[in-house]
Amino acid sequence: MLADPFMTEETAAWAKAMGVKNVTKDYHDILASPEIDAVLICSSTNTHAPISMEAIEAGKHVFCEKPVDLEPANIRKVMDALEKHPELKYQVGFNRRFDHNFEAVRKAVTDGRVGDVQIIRVTSRDPEPPASAYVKVSGGIFLDMTIHDFDMVRYLAGCDAVEVYAEAGVLIDPAIGEAGDVDTAAVTLKMANGAIAVIDNSRKAVYGYDQRAEVFGSKGMAANGNDAPSSAVVTTAEGVTGEKPLYFFLERYMDAYAKEIGSFVHAIETDAEAEPGIEDGLQAVLMGLAAKKSLREHRPVKITEIAEDN
Amino acid sequence: MLADPFMTEETAAWAKAMGVKNVTKDYHDILASPEIDAVLICSSTNTHAPISMEAIEAGKHVFCEKPVDLEPANIRKVMDALEKHPELKYQVGFNRRFDHNFEAVRKAVTDGRVGDVQIIRVTSRDPEPPASAYVKVSGGIFLDMTIHDFDMVRYLAGCDAVEVYAEAGVLIDPAIGEAGDVDTAAVTLKMANGAIAVIDNSRKAVYGYDQRAEVFGSKGMAANGNDAPSSAVVTTAEGVTGEKPLYFFLERYMDAYAKEIGSFVHAIETDAEAEPGIEDGLQAVLMGLAAKKSLREHRPVKITEIAEDN
Amino acid sequence: MLADPFMTEETAAWAKAMGVKNVTKDYHDILASPEIDAVLICSSTNTHAPISMEAIEAGKHVFCEKPVDLEPANIRKVMDALEKHPELKYQVGFNRRFDHNFEAVRKAVTDGRVGDVQIIRVTSRDPEPPASAYVKVSGGIFLDMTIHDFDMVRYLAGCDAVEVYAEAGVLIDPAIGEAGDVDTAAVTLKMANGAIAVIDNSRKAVYGYDQRAEVFGSKGMAANGNDAPSSAVVTTAEGVTGEKPLYFFLERYMDAYAKEIGSFVHAIETDAEAEPGIEDGLQAVLMGLAAKKSLREHRPVKITEIAEDN
Amino acid sequence: MLADPFMTEETAAWAKAMGVKNVTKDYHDILASPEIDAVLICSSTNTHAPISMEAIEAGKHVFCEKPVDLEPANIRKVMDALEKHPELKYQVGFNRRFDHNFEAVRKAVTDGRVGDVQIIRVTSRDPEPPASAYVKVSGGIFLDMTIHDFDMVRYLAGCDAVEVYAEAGVLIDPAIGEAGDVDTAAVTLKMANGAIAVIDNSRKAVYGYDQRAEVFGSKGMAANGNDAPSSAVVTTAEGVTGEKPLYFFLERYMDAYAKEIGSFVHAIETDAEAEPGIEDGLQAVLMGLAAKKSLREHRPVKITEIAEDN
Repeated sequence: MLADPFMTEETAAWAKAMGVKNVTKDYHDILASPEIDAVLICSSTNTHAPISMEAIEAGKHVFCEKPVDLEPANIRKVMDALEKHPELKYQVGFNRRFDHNFEAVRKAVTDGRVGDVQIIRVTSRDPEPPASAYVKVSGGIFLDMTIHDFDMVRYLAGCDAVEVYAEAGVLIDPAIGEAGDVDTAAVTLKMANGAIAVIDNSRKAVYGYDQRAEVFGSKGMAANGNDAPSSAVVTTAEGVTGEKPLYFFLERYMDAYAKEIGSFVHAIETDAEAEPGIEDGLQAVLMGLAAKKSLREHRPVKITEIAEDN
Repeated sequence: MLADPFMTEETAAWAKAMGVKNVTKDYHDILASPEIDAVLICSSTNTHAPISMEAIEAGKHVFCEKPVDLEPANIRKVMDALEKHPELKYQVGFNRRFDHNFEAVRKAVTDGRVGDVQIIRVTSRDPEPPASAYVKVSGGIFLDMTIHDFDMVRYLAGCDAVEVYAEAGVLIDPAIGEAGDVDTAAVTLKMANGAIAVIDNSRKAVYGYDQRAEVFGSKGMAANGNDAPSSAVVTTAEGVTGEKPLYFFLERYMDAYAKEIGSFVHAIETDAEAEPGIEDGLQAVLMGLAAKKSLREHRPVKITEIAEDN
Repeated sequence: MLADPFMTEETAAWAKAMGVKNVTKDYHDILASPEIDAVLICSSTNTHAPISMEAIEAGKHVFCEKPVDLEPANIRKVMDALEKHPELKYQVGFNRRFDHNFEAVRKAVTDGRVGDVQIIRVTSRDPEPPASAYVKVSGGIFLDMTIHDFDMVRYLAGCDAVEVYAEAGVLIDPAIGEAGDVDTAAVTLKMANGAIAVIDNSRKAVYGYDQRAEVFGSKGMAANGNDAPSSAVVTTAEGVTGEKPLYFFLERYMDAYAKEIGSFVHAIETDAEAEPGIEDGLQAVLMGLAAKKSLREHRPVKITEIAEDN
Repeated sequence: MLADPFMTEETAAWAKAMGVKNVTKDYHDILASPEIDAVLICSSTNTHAPISMEAIEAGKHVFCEKPVDLEPANIRKVMDALEKHPELKYQVGFNRRFDHNFEAVRKAVTDGRVGDVQIIRVTSRDPEPPASAYVKVSGGIFLDMTIHDFDMVRYLAGCDAVEVYAEAGVLIDPAIGEAGDVDTAAVTLKMANGAIAVIDNSRKAVYGYDQRAEVFGSKGMAANGNDAPSSAVVTTAEGVTGEKPLYFFLERYMDAYAKEIGSFVHAIETDAEAEPGIEDGLQAVLMGLAAKKSLREHRPVKITEIAEDN
């Protein structure tokens, strides 16, 4: 069943074509249905936590888009609800963990081929900046965009961050600055295992979506590149030219989205841990809030400062 | 509807699960159904031509797996049948034309970035040799395996071959030699536009399916690599190691198969030319027979020699 | 003429074999020789500035190894000496500016292919940590190792740094920590043009010398890889393996050292600007001192804070 | 000492600048000098064999440019002369064996990483065709250009060729055809160990010198790419562009030439085998003559046919 408070005939028709039997404007219809075991929450951010709690209380497994909430306190309420329902799975939508490239980098780490992790670099650049209207309600680049990279850093490091320092500026579009945000950033993180991570972000890479990670350690380095439409290379008097990266997240992460949902279903069916879970959702938000505070106060900020305040 | 002379309950159940409404042991049921506009012929090679003709006479569009027939005379009969039904589409299953990598190389040629085509190289190596029982009925490596490469050479050159020279040997598995075939081959072709093409084949590449092409011309060169499970690269004291190519055709050409059928449907819906068509199917078989004759007679063989004899 | 206060017979013999006519223990012999136009100062760091001044006063062009001095005040004295001798060239030994890879990245910037520079990433990792005895007198990682990267960032950005933030730790060798230094670091810089630069350093990359830069801007990105002994790639059932990077700076920068000296000679012969010059030498030291202070005080440090204090 | 029958003042001055003490118009001066142990024969092809024999009789080690002679009978005369002087080294100028890339491919073969060699591919393309005046006296593409590739195939296969088939055409410059030669070719070789080799040649690759080899075997594949001026890659809205290959043989093989002479000197000093030797010189010429005959007679030609006739 598909619930959308703004359900239109067009959406309803599309849903049917995709094999969804019922549609509704009220998600409570889904929660009330005894036939439904699990829900996917893809609504606007401020509704994630309340709907999550209702769904948990209704006995549904939950897949929730990131961020769970911009307020750690609200995420903790979802955690409390989950504690009362240990039989339920709760997965957060950090889709990049299911990207074949990042998975392979992570596997090199968990296989021990990288050794002790010492340096992590994550590059994450969008092909186009969002509209400034969106920027205003987005929570800022760190909670809207970098949050994926914060989760990636934890995924690759295998531990939490302890401190964050953010450097940023408005280099692409003054309208983003006027909306109170930045469009270019570098975030340095100190991790619990001593590793240092550096994320760089841009809201506009003219060559397309740039999503790379590199993990360096005592035994070696694992890194991934972007995906391109093909492996074809044309060599002429001008140079050796391959295709630029796939345009944006829908192209790059199409397969990752499918695997993500498959993983959620698998966790339910086999009673396995749903990953990434609510704790991952919380940590990424703490890191984002620390980055915001760091930029505002122009100093490194400890995760504990945020956790205690919130 | 799915017809299989050896239809089992298991196959029937699988077909239902895939959304196929009806199953039958007799393909005439499909040909007789007025609801069905188009058929896919994926049976054994010796039945391709006869079923094609029956289907055409029944007014069905036809997608036929390669090779259409091992005898050019039988392919010509299908061509004759098609001439009487100009409203019908006939597409031959050279799936590699729909691979994103080969398509991009071809596009560099048709866009003019390569200039006049002068040299074509096609590497095509399987991860494992077929069972020798299969080898015996396969028509030999040139009609079974290289036939795809013959079509690729024509696709990339934009013209027919005029002469073929085959060099080959049994270097992998003596059982293949005992079955009357070879397992390693290099075929040189002279094309109608003067270009020279070289295909190399192996029945066993321990690193997986190796499918590459390179087109060299007066303005440059276009070439493609293989697809791998990921772009991850691990750098250690031993070297810089990326993943090996995808294992075999199902992995490499999964998307190409989907695009191939989509292209067939699109040709029917828009009354466009179905490509590759029956002429492509014929030419590839002529090239394969010329290669066989070349190896047997240890000399270059003109396509016209084959066409006239058959 | 070659001067070495510890000149031995062995060194003298080696010098003769290399075509050096005279050797001495006293560099004043060189300064006193009217036949000599230019000197290369490759002595220990604390002697760079005093010998530079003597050489300038003796009317010699000077090529001086980096860093010119660990104290900005001493570098300024050399600058003062140079002001009185505008006819003399003074080049500082930032050899990486002459590496073919970094030169090509820089050219992409100056050609306008990158557009406005927004993000710079420099990776610089040594294959092995220095002896802790050396670490103690080295001035610390930022003045000993990162100083090259500071210059690289300025070279690629085309402007000075305005602020520095350093994160670092001892992750490789506790002896380095005991010697009062760190072995793993990430330095974030704010540049005068608004660009953000990130340098990551490690004293031990098991796969060899890792020297890469990436410049991202409004029109694109330019990046370089490492050099390897060959382009050979071996593909087996284990993967696709290329050679690891050249071992260390002598291998990677052999050609750069030759070009560096050639450039110095060329500047003298054609009365062109010797680059990188004394101002480049000063700025890199200011950046290094700012990084040290940043690490010590755990906060971002402005270059002006250092410049004013020194 | 440098001998040049056309010695000019300019050449003499250049030689002096390069450290050559004496110059002469008559190479007999070199052969007569008791101080000289070894000679390099870099004169026109038709003088290689006669001077080689004179030099051997004068007790000199000989490094001779390829081809030793266009007539196998003349090469055999040099071999006879050498048999009488087992103390002398004779090395033939197949410089590509000393290229770092081909050496690494060969090493993968001799190390056993490729396993039994089954397929060899060599691509060898020049950036520009020679003047047609040169073409007329060059002996044709197979003895002038492909001869290097014939040696490369033997070097990589570790054995001799037994049969040659050549396909070729005039696709670049009609003047080359009028001079009686071809400018585009593909040569297929059957090797003594059963392996199949394919060489493709073009006299004009607009993107520069293209020199690659690939060896495929029972355990894997080793392949090399070209060398480029730098590893820099520029990514823009148009694609991901690296530098094209180095322009021609002087750029690509500069280091190989130095290693080649070093190897000759080392063989003399240590009384080691000089490689490649006179047998290598003979085999490459036999292969070239077989290719010529194959093209003329339009059939595969056995090496023994050539060896017996010559």
